[in-house]
Amino acid sequence: MPPQPIAFFGLGLMGRPMAEHLIAGGHTVTLWNRTRSKADGLGAPVADRPAEAVREGGLVFSLLADDRAVLDLFGDGAIAARLGPGGVHVGLSTVAPETARRLAEIHAAAGSRYMSAPVMGRPEAVAARKEHFLAAGPAEAKDRARPILEALGEGGVYDFGEAPESANAAKLINNYLIAATINALADAVTMAEKSGIDPEALYAQATGTLFDCLAWKTYGRQIVDRSYDTPSFKLSLGLKDVKLVGGLADATEMPSPVVSALHDRYLAAVAQGMGGLDWSGIARLVRRNAGLGD
Amino acid sequence: MPPQPIAFFGLGLMGRPMAEHLIAGGHTVTLWNRTRSKADGLGAPVADRPAEAVREGGLVFSLLADDRAVLDLFGDGAIAARLGPGGVHVGLSTVAPETARRLAEIHAAAGSRYMSAPVMGRPEAVAARKEHFLAAGPAEAKDRARPILEALGEGGVYDFGEAPESANAAKLINNYLIAATINALADAVTMAEKSGIDPEALYAQATGTLFDCLAWKTYGRQIVDRSYDTPSFKLSLGLKDVKLVGGLADATEMPSPVVSALHDRYLAAVAQGMGGLDWSGIARLVRRNAGLGD
Repeated sequence: MPPQPIAFFGLGLMGRPMAEHLIAGGHTVTLWNRTRSKADGLGAPVADRPAEAVREGGLVFSLLADDRAVLDLFGDGAIAARLGPGGVHVGLSTVAPETARRLAEIHAAAGSRYMSAPVMGRPEAVAARKEHFLAAGPAEAKDRARPILEALGEGGVYDFGEAPESANAAKLINNYLIAATINALADAVTMAEKSGIDPEALYAQATGTLFDCLAWKTYGRQIVDRSYDTPSFKLSLGLKDVKLVGGLADATEMPSPVVSALHDRYLAAVAQGMGGLDWSGIARLVRRNAGLGD
Repeated sequence: MPPQPIAFFGLGLMGRPMAEHLIAGGHTVTLWNRTRSKADGLGAPVADRPAEAVREGGLVFSLLADDRAVLDLFGDGAIAARLGPGGVHVGLSTVAPETARRLAEIHAAAGSRYMSAPVMGRPEAVAARKEHFLAAGPAEAKDRARPILEALGEGGVYDFGEAPESANAAKLINNYLIAATINALADAVTMAEKSGIDPEALYAQATGTLFDCLAWKTYGRQIVDRSYDTPSFKLSLGLKDVKLVGGLADATEMPSPVVSALHDRYLAAVAQGMGGLDWSGIARLVRRNAGLGD
């Protein structure tokens, strides 16, 4: 794959290691971030204004905090117009399918292409190139982005079809599965403690048998250790994602009492000042509800 | 390990393959089952009355449907008395911790010992010697039972301490984790379909990455295929176990909206005639709730 001209928007916990890998991969990367200082020190030029980062016919990668940040940046169509024919925007953010649909329209109107490729992985996974991507969009866009995404994350690229918003729905469903896992583990470990069972014994048995997989081991470990203070993914962002899942459930008319319960637990955790914990910190709320200390 | 005199009570879907393995292992096994015909054809003598199956100082294995069946059989202490000093009862059933506590008292009063070793695995796993056991009870009882259990299931024996009821609580917590997994997968696959996502693509991605483990693959496969008609574990028994989990949550003062939601979903599924499906068949209820066909 020849080096590509890439504009990279969003240098947060996830975006920064990804931009580093693109720069190390020999691409011609131009950075932009709302807080400019976060783009410094990566050895790539930083644009003063977003559109200035973009090369006609080039690539845009965006990895932003939420739907509002995405629409603030791309909603007026200026970046899509600058990309022009042949240009491809690869949206890596976790946003509502509706937002992806709007981006696809904006880019189509400007003659450029939008695809979604939300990233699955925490910052440490991205740094270690262990993440994977859920990709959906026009075939030409996916063909162009795939080798770059495959070089970024050895977890690979999973294809969810031609409609960009399908990848965003798949990402929300994945985050629902993770949140449901965290919540089940928080219940289980707390119930074990209240039953007089050693949580370590439960962890060893469950993750050594039926639940011998990354999500269960990672979050189970944090919950057994009550170690939520160094967030890889903040609980406040977990609430944001659970709200997006609820929005998807509403939009698709898919009633789920667990989606509703997760919303209430994450909202209560934020209300009780836990928004800055890792999202596995929901276990602290479960302990409090059950009359245990933090 | 020398061959042991073993009375085996309960020759249902789980008990029958286990008794077969004990007989094949050279133990002196005597069978008893409420419906006598289910004990036929295994090549071991069948007792007319329960206590007649028991040898003084020997072993009793029981694998019965529910708490009532266990207390009906062992509640009057006759079998515990027949076992006598040195005798050990290994309770394999999924029952409430309170039932295990009562059995421990009954056996202690009779001079014999009770331990719990609920089995984790479906009938086909038991037949293939893939199950594992959650063991708790007096050390001497566990020392005597362990080599027999290890020979039965290569998944091994996980130790939950000296109090027999801890193994029963651990079993219920495990079944909660499985039910929460089934429920999350049912939600996810249904939401995928309603979002226009191919459920196979979601299955491949999720179980190929964060959820690459037995419970998620097994139940995910059944739910994606909508294949619940040959039950390994009936939905009606799933409701029984979810009620036991709710009882544990109440007894330990452990509030959980998901435990409550699982109860309501399993109860609704039984009400709608799905009690004879596999317990992954909760996905059919989720589909109906979401306006989809079976």
